[in-house]
Parts: sequence; structure tokens; C-alpha cells
Amino acid sequence: MGQAQEQEFKQLLKEQYIYRETLALISWDMHTCLPKKGLEQRLETVGFLSEKLHELQTSSRMKELIELFKEDAADRVLQKSALECEKIYNKQCVIPAKEYKEYVMLRSKSEALWQEAREKSDFSLFQPYLEKIVEYNKRFANYWGYENHIYDALLGQYEPGITVKTLDEVFPKLRKELTTLLKKIQESKVEADSSPLYHYFSEQNQEALSLELINRIGYDLEAGRMDTSVHPYTFGISQSDVRITTRYNENDFQIAVFSALHEAGHGLYEQNFSESLKNTPLAEASSMGMHEAQALFWEGFIGRSKAFWETNADLLEKYAPAGIHTLSLEQIYHSLHAVKPSFIRVEADEVTYPLHIMIRYELEKGLLTGEIKAADLPQIWNEKMEEYLGIRPETDREGVLQDIHWASGDFGYFPSYTLGYIYASQLHSALSKTVDIEETVRQGQFSPIKQWFTKNVYQYGKMKKPLEIIEDLSGEQLNPDHFVHYLNKKYKKIYQF
Amino acid sequence: MGQAQEQEFKQLLKEQYIYRETLALISWDMHTCLPKKGLEQRLETVGFLSEKLHELQTSSRMKELIELFKEDAADRVLQKSALECEKIYNKQCVIPAKEYKEYVMLRSKSEALWQEAREKSDFSLFQPYLEKIVEYNKRFANYWGYENHIYDALLGQYEPGITVKTLDEVFPKLRKELTTLLKKIQESKVEADSSPLYHYFSEQNQEALSLELINRIGYDLEAGRMDTSVHPYTFGISQSDVRITTRYNENDFQIAVFSALHEAGHGLYEQNFSESLKNTPLAEASSMGMHEAQALFWEGFIGRSKAFWETNADLLEKYAPAGIHTLSLEQIYHSLHAVKPSFIRVEADEVTYPLHIMIRYELEKGLLTGEIKAADLPQIWNEKMEEYLGIRPETDREGVLQDIHWASGDFGYFPSYTLGYIYASQLHSALSKTVDIEETVRQGQFSPIKQWFTKNVYQYGKMKKPLEIIEDLSGEQLNPDHFVHYLNKKYKKIYQF
Repeated sequence: MGQAQEQEFKQLLKEQYIYRETLALISWDMHTCLPKKGLEQRLETVGFLSEKLHELQTSSRMKELIELFKEDAADRVLQKSALECEKIYNKQCVIPAKEYKEYVMLRSKSEALWQEAREKSDFSLFQPYLEKIVEYNKRFANYWGYENHIYDALLGQYEPGITVKTLDEVFPKLRKELTTLLKKIQESKVEADSSPLYHYFSEQNQEALSLELINRIGYDLEAGRMDTSVHPYTFGISQSDVRITTRYNENDFQIAVFSALHEAGHGLYEQNFSESLKNTPLAEASSMGMHEAQALFWEGFIGRSKAFWETNADLLEKYAPAGIHTLSLEQIYHSLHAVKPSFIRVEADEVTYPLHIMIRYELEKGLLTGEIKAADLPQIWNEKMEEYLGIRPETDREGVLQDIHWASGDFGYFPSYTLGYIYASQLHSALSKTVDIEETVRQGQFSPIKQWFTKNVYQYGKMKKPLEIIEDLSGEQLNPDHFVHYLNKKYKKIYQF
Repeated sequence: MGQAQEQEFKQLLKEQYIYRETLALISWDMHTCLPKKGLEQRLETVGFLSEKLHELQTSSRMKELIELFKEDAADRVLQKSALECEKIYNKQCVIPAKEYKEYVMLRSKSEALWQEAREKSDFSLFQPYLEKIVEYNKRFANYWGYENHIYDALLGQYEPGITVKTLDEVFPKLRKELTTLLKKIQESKVEADSSPLYHYFSEQNQEALSLELINRIGYDLEAGRMDTSVHPYTFGISQSDVRITTRYNENDFQIAVFSALHEAGHGLYEQNFSESLKNTPLAEASSMGMHEAQALFWEGFIGRSKAFWETNADLLEKYAPAGIHTLSLEQIYHSLHAVKPSFIRVEADEVTYPLHIMIRYELEKGLLTGEIKAADLPQIWNEKMEEYLGIRPETDREGVLQDIHWASGDFGYFPSYTLGYIYASQLHSALSKTVDIEETVRQGQFSPIKQWFTKNVYQYGKMKKPLEIIEDLSGEQLNPDHFVHYLNKKYKKIYQF
């Protein structure tokens, strides 16, 4: 390659980066600030800028440059960028434009119908649209291609390197362990419930507490900010501007604080990509699951630990109502670990959460292969809920209709949520070999942890796939044992079995 | 013109509109939300998107379409758009690219040097840069062309239809009237000072008060929002998203409230352009002066009237500290009209403000013609201050170095501030022929006023030049008598002369 081609390729990467950055800023604005009447015009703008980005990603010149640079081992960042661009190119170019347009329109209708169906708790309204969405996803999967299983084509979009073969080994094993643990907790005489934490706690004070906590763990408020939105989210606009949102319930401060810690975990990842990835498509998380792992690590492994509330007792005293800050550390810790099967995934605790995911994984895999018919979903859903969690939803609304993902065509995404727990646990084990985590947290020293993650995970962005990160650290492949061990150890103590 | 050409022209106008909208959103974000470390990357993005906009505005295809549509009387909006595009095209294309680039760099340095000079209160540091900036502006004025006076080329960028000939008639006349009025106020036995309003007033309550006030006058908070920034400003992102900012001083609530009313006046203008101007360059204010007129009308003519505080007494009682809301209406009204010569333009009252502007106008005109040398500016400045306002600055900092405008190369802009007062007064007179303004305000009925402005000013955007708007309403040209009459009538009563 000549100097000129390298220059041109870098320039094209940079232009794409700028459009992505602009779209991320607009998205943040739409979730936090946009006045109601501004929505329509803003959607036109999003459409226009997305189209510009799409043109850049799929031009024939881009394809030529991808071919040139994807074999070039001289500059690893450029080479990996070319491979990432190829993935994006293929994803967008193999679907005939007309078909994709029809699909986008179908998806909008499908989301609207899902909403109506959910409100009326009537799956049959949504069913015909779901069937069509599944048909399109089958076709797309065939366009994208796969080696062993049609679902792999979809899974690979979110979780490169993970296949049905892996999940079909790992998930049943994990399910057995989790249902056993759940049973022990349910049979325990110890009752841990969250109600001791339910005191009025002003939004203003919750915000101040959350800001101090995320600042302490190392989220850089000079390269980010925290706002409010209906669903907490992280907006990586650029790596020097990674904004998070949280939400408030003045009678349950856990929601705001753990949302903030969760999003700050995502934020720490995006604030600490290597400078060398700037203006490339590699300045993104390795995968959805690896992104989730960072959020779960800071929220769960750190944020729900006893040591964390010991070191941050000063902040509780400063901001929390007396009813909370006079609780003993033990009481707080127990209250943060109430485990109970429930119908709604996003409200589930860490023990039952992965079981919710497994049900979805099995169902969407079955839909893709045709082994499960859309019409049978509600019944199969309810049966699996009973089998895995011991509870049976009485309505479609608290059953099969609760998530928007299928209406939006996001097949293959759900497993990332559970992979996040597994990755996080494997990283936690690796970290604990060099850092005494509990002691470090107790002393309020979060920077060794942040440094370790920056060195081993954050900096790489998309330079490494999730399993490469795990393997380089531990020599292992995907291994749910760490997660199981972590849960058993913790809950055994709390529930005394 | 064929259908296809019209389609193409509209599409190109729309694309420009979208880039302008996106840049406006980014600008709002930079003034209100952007985390510190995000600035560098954001400036790169602004540079890139501005370049894209510039390319669209100056393409040879654009030039062809301008030629096609500027004569087309069939669609007035398209025709006027073509003329506006031609103006932008000419402004950008007649300056050789190399020269413009040098100028942009010079301007950055000049702003930095001005800042340093101001801090050290030493004009000589800034002088060599100012000389160069003036040289460039002379050259640009010659590129752009003018009929009678070199300054007209610059003035016309901000105030189409206004020339040196007009200002040289109007300003001296106005000056005489204002200095006479000022003398009467200074000789009056009535002392009106603002100090009765200086009570601690929490930012939170000032914000709530400001929001209710701007909502009452008709600023649409569903198509806008109010945030905080160092300098209050209006960001017209699209006409369904016009955001304003204000600033707070907890010991002087006037700053927040009148900034909010001022910016809401700008906001009302931009929220009420005709729908037919959407996606064209005509969805902007007629001129800088006409924009300022809308802000001054709502801030001054309405916001500082006695009737306004009579009808809004309930809000003062709700939000203001007792020390303020127990003042009599008369006391409040007097306190809002303290007149006193002072050094700093942006802190001046409405009687002395235009005198500050006239000094700047005379000086920049002299710089452009060469009749005034940069080296002599500080002395001439001080002499004029003494002549017009009766006070003499002791330092360059509170004299010639106070404004950034010249450092940024904004020659020809200052007159718009005073034209704003004159336009506003002419509009006020025209409005008073059909609406009993005082009575309407006293009853808290602002919608007839807003409707009148929408019908006669707002809706037109750039479809009419400022003097066309004035002439269509009153048959008059620029006439400062209305402003003089308004001031004399008001202050005569307050200061009893």
C-alpha cells in the first residue's frame, strides 16, 4: 500500500467515526433533552445522517480499501479496522436494498403491534408480525451465512466467536447449578428481603450519592456526565465524552444507585479504549456480552459487596435518610441480596436472571430452526417458566410479551446478557490472582482494579474478541464454573446452607 | 424548470438545513452539557460538518441551480431561497480559499491575543493583530463589493438594506435625543436605583419563575427548553426545537429573568417561522437587528412594563423572597429603570446602551476607511465616551478592549444592536394601533401580541428584509422617533421632569 491509500483509508474511517459520534450525541439528546415537538424533525435528521454513514460503509471504494488493508500485518489497527469494516460491509450489502427497506417498515409496524398486544395482554395480535419477522431473520441468516447452525449467523452479530455449540454445552450446565442454588435459598430459614432499604430518599440526594460513588470507582466526570432517562443507558459519543443515564424511585434508592454503577461500568470501558483506536471502528466494546460484563462487574461484584458499603458508609451517612444509614452493614448487605423468582426479566436478581435468558434463547433458536411455531410460544414460555423458576405467568403480558427484542427483530441478542455474567466472573477470578479485591475495595482503592481492567480489557476495544480476552488472561475458554462458584460462596454465607 | 431539477434543488436545500441543524445542536451541547475533555474531539466534528455544509453551499451544481431558480417567480419560497443561497455562495466563493484559511488562523490568534491584552489591560499587545484583521476585512469588503461606502459591504452581511448613508442620518439624531434625555434623568431629584431588588433569591426559584414567565408570554416549552450557560443565548436547532439559555445571580434575580425573557423573545421568533420555510435557508431571522428587536420587545417593552409585573404579581408571591414580593408595584417598576452611564456595554441600560454602540460604529467605520488608525483607538474611544456618556474609562480593559467582536473580525455587526431598539419601537407603534398593549398585558393576555408578531414578522423569516417588514406595517422607513418617544414618555413619568 502506498502512503496515499493509507491516508485515504484513514480519512474514510475518520468520517465514519464522526457520523457515528454525531448520531450518538443525537441519540443521547433524544433520550434526555429533546423537546416533544422536536422529535419528528430529529428523526429525519437521524435518517439522513445514518444514510450518509451507510453510504460511506458500503461504497465500492471502501470495498477496495478493505481488500487492500485486511491482509496488511504492518499496521495491526488498520488491518483489524479493515476486517471490522468488512463485517459491516457484508452485513449491510448482502441484503438486497428493497428487502431491507421492507424489513425496516415491517419492524416499525411490528413494534407498534407488540405494544398494543402487550397492553391488551393478547399474544395473538402480535403473532402474525412475529412470524414475518422470523421469516426475514431466517433469510438474513442465510445471506450472512453460517457453518453449523442458522442461529450462529445471528448470534455472531453480537457475540463474535460464540456459537450454538458452545451455548448448548454451557447453558444447561449453568441452569442445573442455578436451579439447585435457588432451591437452597428458597428452603433456607434466613429471609432476606429488601424492605429495610425502602425509605423516602430525595432524588437530589440520590443523585449526589450516585455521582460520588461513580467518581470514586473511577468513572471520569470530566469525560462524561450523568443525566436521567426512562431506561438507564450509556452513550459513548467519543471516548472523551461517554455519558450515562440513570433513573430514580424516591422510595427505593437501589434503582438509581445500581443503575448508575452499572452504566458507569459501561462508561469505564468506553472511556478507556486505547488512544490508538480513535477514529476507527475498533473504538467499541469487544462484544455486547463483554460490554455487559464490565457493567455487571462494577454493579454486582464490586457494588453489591460488603466491602463496598463499608468503605462508602460516609456517603450513606451524608446523603441517606436515617432509616437507611443507621442500618448495620450486615443488614444492608442482606437487603441487597434478596433472591426470589419473578416474572419480569429486568427486575430479576442475579441468581434467577440467567434462567430468564435461557428460556428466551431456547425459544428463539427453536423459532429459527422451525422446531417451534410462533403460535405455541405462550404455552412453551409458561411451561419453561414453571420448569426453571417454579412460577407460571397468568397473562401474556407478564410472560411472552414482556420484551421488545423480538418485535424489533433482535434475534441472537439475549444470550449476551448471560454471557456478561460468565465473562465477568472469569475476569473476576483472573483479577483476584493479582489483586486482593475485597481488601482493596474496603480501603476504597479502586484504581488498581480500574488499571487492571484498562490493561487487560478496556484498552483493546474491538482489537480482541471476547474469548481472546478471556483466554489471554486465564488460558480458559468460556467457563461458567467461576460464576457458579462466586454465587454459591456468597449465597451460602447469606442464607446459611 | 423541470420537476427533476426542482426535486434536486429542494433536496440540496434540505441537506444544508440538516447540517445547520446538527451544528446548532452541537453548539447548544458545547455551551450547556459537553464534558471538559470532550471539547477537542467535538471541535474536529464541528470542522468536518462545517466543511460538508460549505461543500454543499459552494458546489458548481449549486451555482447552476441558483441561476435556474433565482428568476423563477412561480414558487416564491424557492426563488427567495435561491437568492439567499446566492448570497451565501458569493460570500464564501469570492474570497480565495488560501486567503480565507490564513484569515481563520489569524482570527484565532487575534482572539487569544485580545484575551491576553484585556487581562493585562494593554491595547498595544492587541494592536498589530487588529491592524491585520482590519486589512483582511477591507479586502473582503472589496471582494464582496459595495456601491457607496466600503463599510456597507460588511454592514450588509448582518443588516440587508441598511447602509452608512442611513446610519449617518439616524444615529446622530438619536444621539442628540438620548444625551438630552440622559441629562434630564441625571438632573432629576428622583433617584431610581435597583437595590430594593437585591435580595437572596434561590437559583431554583429563579428558574421556576423564569419558566412560568416565558410560558405565559407564549414561548413553547414543548418546542424548546431553558438551560444555563455563561452567556445567555438562543439556539434555533429547528423550528420545533428552539432552545434558550439563561444565567443566575442569586443576589440579583433581574439577570436571570430578563435574560430569559430576552432569549424567549428570540425563541418566539424562531418557533414561529412559516412551515413553508422548513428545510430552506429562509427559516432564519430577517436580520440580526430584527432578531434583536424581538428579544428587546419582550424583554423591554413588555417585560419591564408596569402592567407585566401587575399581572405576574402571583408569580413573584409564589417564588420571590418576601423582601421582593412585598415591594409595591411602583417600587418594583422604579427599581427596574435605574439609568446610569457606565463603562461596560453589556451592563448598560436602554437609554445609554445605544450610545455605546454609536462609538463602536464610528470607530470601525473610521478603521475601514483609514481615517482612524488602530494606534489611536484607545484615545478616541475615551474621548467619545466622555463626550457621549460623560465618563472616561481609566483602563483599556474597561474601554476599547471590552468586546471580542473586533478580535473575531465581526466588523459591521455592532449597529444591529441599536437597530434592534429602533425596529422594536417601530413595531411597538404599529402594534399599538390594533392592540391596547398595556391593557392586554395587564390582563395577562399575551396571545394577541404573539399572534400579531407571528402574522407580521415571525412567519416571514428571511422572506422579507427588515425594512420591508417595517414599511409593510407602517409605510415608514427606518425612523428613530418612535424609540425616542417611547423612552421620553416612560422616563418623564419615572423621573418627573
